[in-house]
Amino acid sequence: MELQFNLKAYYKTSADPTPAMEAVAAFFEEANRTILTKGAPEGQGALLTGWEIWEDRIKFTLESGKYVRVHDAALRLKKQLSAVLGKEFKIGIRGTEVESFTILVPSEKELKEMKVPYVKRMENVRGGVLLELEVGEAEMKNRVPDRILTLLEDKIEAARYGAKAEHWNLIWQREPMEHPFKEDPTQAMMKEGWLKRGSSRGQWIHGPQSTKVFRTFEKIVYEELLEPIGYREMIFPKLVPWEVWMKSGHAKGVYPEIYYVCPPKTRDPEYWEEVIDHYKVTHEVPTALIKEKIGDPIGGMCYAQCPPFWGFVAGETLPNDEVPIRVFDRSGTSHRYESGGIHGIERVDEFHRIEILWLGTKDQVIAAAEELHDRYMHIFNDILNIEWRKAKVTPWFMAQEGLLGLAEGNVVGTTDYEACLPYRGEDGEWLEFQNVSINGDKYPSGFNVKLQSGEELWSGCSGVGLERWAAVFLAQKGLDPENWPEEFRKRVGEMPKGIRFL
Amino acid sequence: MELQFNLKAYYKTSADPTPAMEAVAAFFEEANRTILTKGAPEGQGALLTGWEIWEDRIKFTLESGKYVRVHDAALRLKKQLSAVLGKEFKIGIRGTEVESFTILVPSEKELKEMKVPYVKRMENVRGGVLLELEVGEAEMKNRVPDRILTLLEDKIEAARYGAKAEHWNLIWQREPMEHPFKEDPTQAMMKEGWLKRGSSRGQWIHGPQSTKVFRTFEKIVYEELLEPIGYREMIFPKLVPWEVWMKSGHAKGVYPEIYYVCPPKTRDPEYWEEVIDHYKVTHEVPTALIKEKIGDPIGGMCYAQCPPFWGFVAGETLPNDEVPIRVFDRSGTSHRYESGGIHGIERVDEFHRIEILWLGTKDQVIAAAEELHDRYMHIFNDILNIEWRKAKVTPWFMAQEGLLGLAEGNVVGTTDYEACLPYRGEDGEWLEFQNVSINGDKYPSGFNVKLQSGEELWSGCSGVGLERWAAVFLAQKGLDPENWPEEFRKRVGEMPKGIRFL
Repeated sequence: MELQFNLKAYYKTSADPTPAMEAVAAFFEEANRTILTKGAPEGQGALLTGWEIWEDRIKFTLESGKYVRVHDAALRLKKQLSAVLGKEFKIGIRGTEVESFTILVPSEKELKEMKVPYVKRMENVRGGVLLELEVGEAEMKNRVPDRILTLLEDKIEAARYGAKAEHWNLIWQREPMEHPFKEDPTQAMMKEGWLKRGSSRGQWIHGPQSTKVFRTFEKIVYEELLEPIGYREMIFPKLVPWEVWMKSGHAKGVYPEIYYVCPPKTRDPEYWEEVIDHYKVTHEVPTALIKEKIGDPIGGMCYAQCPPFWGFVAGETLPNDEVPIRVFDRSGTSHRYESGGIHGIERVDEFHRIEILWLGTKDQVIAAAEELHDRYMHIFNDILNIEWRKAKVTPWFMAQEGLLGLAEGNVVGTTDYEACLPYRGEDGEWLEFQNVSINGDKYPSGFNVKLQSGEELWSGCSGVGLERWAAVFLAQKGLDPENWPEEFRKRVGEMPKGIRFL
Repeated sequence: MELQFNLKAYYKTSADPTPAMEAVAAFFEEANRTILTKGAPEGQGALLTGWEIWEDRIKFTLESGKYVRVHDAALRLKKQLSAVLGKEFKIGIRGTEVESFTILVPSEKELKEMKVPYVKRMENVRGGVLLELEVGEAEMKNRVPDRILTLLEDKIEAARYGAKAEHWNLIWQREPMEHPFKEDPTQAMMKEGWLKRGSSRGQWIHGPQSTKVFRTFEKIVYEELLEPIGYREMIFPKLVPWEVWMKSGHAKGVYPEIYYVCPPKTRDPEYWEEVIDHYKVTHEVPTALIKEKIGDPIGGMCYAQCPPFWGFVAGETLPNDEVPIRVFDRSGTSHRYESGGIHGIERVDEFHRIEILWLGTKDQVIAAAEELHDRYMHIFNDILNIEWRKAKVTPWFMAQEGLLGLAEGNVVGTTDYEACLPYRGEDGEWLEFQNVSINGDKYPSGFNVKLQSGEELWSGCSGVGLERWAAVFLAQKGLDPENWPEEFRKRVGEMPKGIRFL
């Protein structure tokens, strides 16, 4: 079975088109050989398979495969036919009315009903899925049928492969090391009073000791990497509205993991009096009542950290000598609704990250990524002295949009850094503790940023997760500074005292 | 008119109490002289004004003013009467049933209807407000009538004073200075490309230059104040659940200004498929549908910064030699739904702050506040060299709970630091750019933290708002480092280049 579009529709005319019958016949006959095949491989254009003239309309049926799809064909025809009817017969075309629009998509598997706008009916047929759309001229112009087809093809692909694991290709691995410390570092930290659980899910309050470790990581990244290479610090916003995620692509799939943000419907104190009075009398927060009094979600708490940067350069053209631009942000928390149960600091809902971002020509962006890889290797081998490896994986922006797979044979993609956690045992799962990504032209294109030369603008980003670094370093080295590598101890200095309790 | 409580109720008995008639009479008579007046000033206790014996109950009427309120009186009576009936007559009291419970509260003004649980009816009467409650024994035990009275008294107080301005007492002012720079610093920064508006309300993306100024402020606070005095850095959580705000008191009134946070109802990708499909087809985020798919708000984005610290010490007893404890946090953003229109960086919805917090005995907490005041004076006079003043104001925790006024004759309270913004003109409003607060035992008491010695534990906090410091400093000094005070320039070092556009 092949992809098939079928459209039955008519053009509404300003007068009875019967006098133009012969001209219309000639036009349609020629169209099948010219405008309906233009741009398509031989024999694969759209085909007008029938037409009728009524007193106030010209009805027609169009079929196509994936080239010159029926909605494009109808628009092409309308434009040319308008010229024919207007010039010779003074008849205008007032619009296109759709009687039926179907798409037949090949699929080996049956698909479950999708609830999407513009789809009137969906049926599993032998060898495929039949969609009946409810679209008008505006939706055809806006390419809604194409989006629906893409969506369906994605679902067919997903159904075929099931829950396919993310791609993973090892590219480097350090030699195995001895790890005398075997405890779960979170448990050890709790025992030593370094941190306590926060009141919200997957959230920690860090005491002076773990904070000092985090800040030492920051200092190392700053002194060994950011400062020498010339990264400049910026402050990226941390409440992310839909507008940003629409341009970054996250709006395509990030919903299950977002902490959503809703503003009050108004700041008027009287509007909130009922809630306040309720609390004062019952000492319970009336959350259902509050939900009624807040607006629809405007977006969410920071998730991927770099998207809000792009507002700074959106719609701009960069001078050739301004790139590569290298910046970083460490101004706040990221939040993800993580799956299941209680975890230690290796899997948290609220975390701290230095986000490193660069943009420039393709060559500059690739070179900047290499530079980072070199510096990270120095940090992990010579300062933290940990056992780690790196692997090429499904690009993070694809994973976060709900896509799988690997941009094969391409420099665009994500490299994950992973480390073993000795307390998990010999065969325990390694932990991803940071990544370096080359994102191609995804962001410059989504946020409409251009380069003076006209050359394609690329970008990359790298997230240094402080909780993850701590989970790895402390799992391998333990909490006693005596057992930490000399190069790290030099940088920590004296560890602060914690807060003691009776 | 005086405050009057009136309760008609009965005790359900396990058997006909008629045989105990005389003992009951004697008990009630004595009660009016003993247990119903105990703890009240002469003649101001509760009064049992009538009673009746039925075959399955003992009915009674109680009246009181503010001492030994009728619900307390009824509980006291029940306990003692149970002893009398049980011992001599083997009759048990099975519970208290309320027939009517009214409170008459003096008020000069009429009050509008309150919608609160447990209030059946509310009526404005001559000289007061009459409340009819719907409460049972459990609510009387939980002191619900007291909470309703307090709430009503607050409203009467608010109605009497109307929109009373916050309290403000000048306590120190620097001599007037010349300010040659007269521009609005936000406008100037935008012109120079130091920052751009973020996509959300009252939000900015800071380029390398303004970020450098912010980080220099942080460095100054760290080097001149935090480090020498021995403040230790911690990381406080930034998503704040109700539980924290209930203990900190914010749950009493902060609702109009919160950015609320709602989690997804589930992380199941299938549950979100409809939203994802909708977006992919329409390229619009279906916010109303999303609101249905998220849970009730669990709390909000960080508002006051210090409350989430208290989870670290909640429920603990501190050794005497552990206090004073001095900590600070600078790990993320704060968010407030601010009022009206478009503002510059002096009024933002998303901002950055170093939160400084200390706890110890009353004397230690007062001394620590003085130490901060001294250091701040040094910073503002000798390093930033700005024109500023300070004033004692309504304590911030009262303001944030919707309360007004000043804790008079008391060291508990807030000192605001304010500075003139020359672009606003000679008579322009000064800007509050930070504060120092002594919060008394509010937090230790709310979060149940104790001191080994049994002495009362106090705390204080001080918020250094980086946007506010920048607004003040740049408004008075301008953007050209040439015109900045030497001591500040030394600490900034070289200003970074900004990002240039064509």
